[in-house]
Amino acid sequence: MTTANERSADYPIDPIFLERWSPRAFTGESISEKDLFTMLEAARWAASSGNVQPWRFIYAHRNTAHWEKFVGLLVPGNQVWAKNASALVILVSNSLVKRPGSDAEVLSPTHSFDTGTASGYFALQASLMGWHAHGMAGFDRERAFVELNVSKGYTVEFAYAVGRLGDPTKLPVALQAREHPSTRLPLKELAFEGLFQAASTAKA
Amino acid sequence: MTTANERSADYPIDPIFLERWSPRAFTGESISEKDLFTMLEAARWAASSGNVQPWRFIYAHRNTAHWEKFVGLLVPGNQVWAKNASALVILVSNSLVKRPGSDAEVLSPTHSFDTGTASGYFALQASLMGWHAHGMAGFDRERAFVELNVSKGYTVEFAYAVGRLGDPTKLPVALQAREHPSTRLPLKELAFEGLFQAASTAKA
Repeated sequence: MTTANERSADYPIDPIFLERWSPRAFTGESISEKDLFTMLEAARWAASSGNVQPWRFIYAHRNTAHWEKFVGLLVPGNQVWAKNASALVILVSNSLVKRPGSDAEVLSPTHSFDTGTASGYFALQASLMGWHAHGMAGFDRERAFVELNVSKGYTVEFAYAVGRLGDPTKLPVALQAREHPSTRLPLKELAFEGLFQAASTAKA
Repeated sequence: MTTANERSADYPIDPIFLERWSPRAFTGESISEKDLFTMLEAARWAASSGNVQPWRFIYAHRNTAHWEKFVGLLVPGNQVWAKNASALVILVSNSLVKRPGSDAEVLSPTHSFDTGTASGYFALQASLMGWHAHGMAGFDRERAFVELNVSKGYTVEFAYAVGRLGDPTKLPVALQAREHPSTRLPLKELAFEGLFQAASTAKA
């Protein structure tokens, strides 16, 4: 129904959801503060439970004082390509929330979930601007917590490499083969009326 | 820079991020399977760590066999308005992930976060179609796990009421006062270069 970016949707969704993807070949050009903050501004407008907005963003532009520290937090398999990004962003969430009518803080059941919503907004806005935001779980969360001076009560969630699409032939050969938009599981394995159904054997 | 829906963004983001909001006044009209699945299709195309796609959706259309069970999972403060929705959707995530090259399952560090990204896509697509998806953390997760037959290893994450905007004067008076798009914290409290900064005293 909607086709874009080598992908076909089964229902007529807006093409922005197909157009966003996660390349690894980046040009290494610089990104303006305005462009990076425009992506963060979109994330800012995400919905969250009770509008508590648990998301926080710690960023480094390439060729700045913090850059090597950020690259060094990534696993080697991500460093090899993400070192050519224009900016790196670490997402952190406030794990604690005040109960209504109280100053006592309790663990939020949605701090990671809500921050994932902001993350989705961030990557969509990047894509709309002609940038790419490639999300990474592969980094050292414990070391990020210490080296980025994250406060107690906050959780290190996720990382992004933001860049302009570069020449894929400059990637290591094994990554060149993966440099295309990924597919998805069929909706019938993800959506169920009334009652949950355990996974079938089919894979995307 | 971008203004929409009584909201002003500080950077030139796409207006879709401002236009999506969470009303409570719904018409109670029915929603087609195609419209609901178009929202779920957008969610399907979300990014996830390793493309594992941990999100699952369990839904009920109003005036169907499962409807009252779904309404009954909500806290009373949400039942009062969400009973006029066209569909209710419960989001569940697969908490476990296989390590590369192994069949052993370990706890995923991103199952909630990734499902939050899909949740954001779902609500944006609903808004683009003229529907509204109002997210709710206020429901009984433990009872949802049992009554929706959720499998061990999955986490009940979040709920949505999906509907068409109705007459706000039919809401309880206390909710009428809240029936407008919410504001956000300033970006300077959310985004930091190089090092995390603890929250200041300002509030949105």
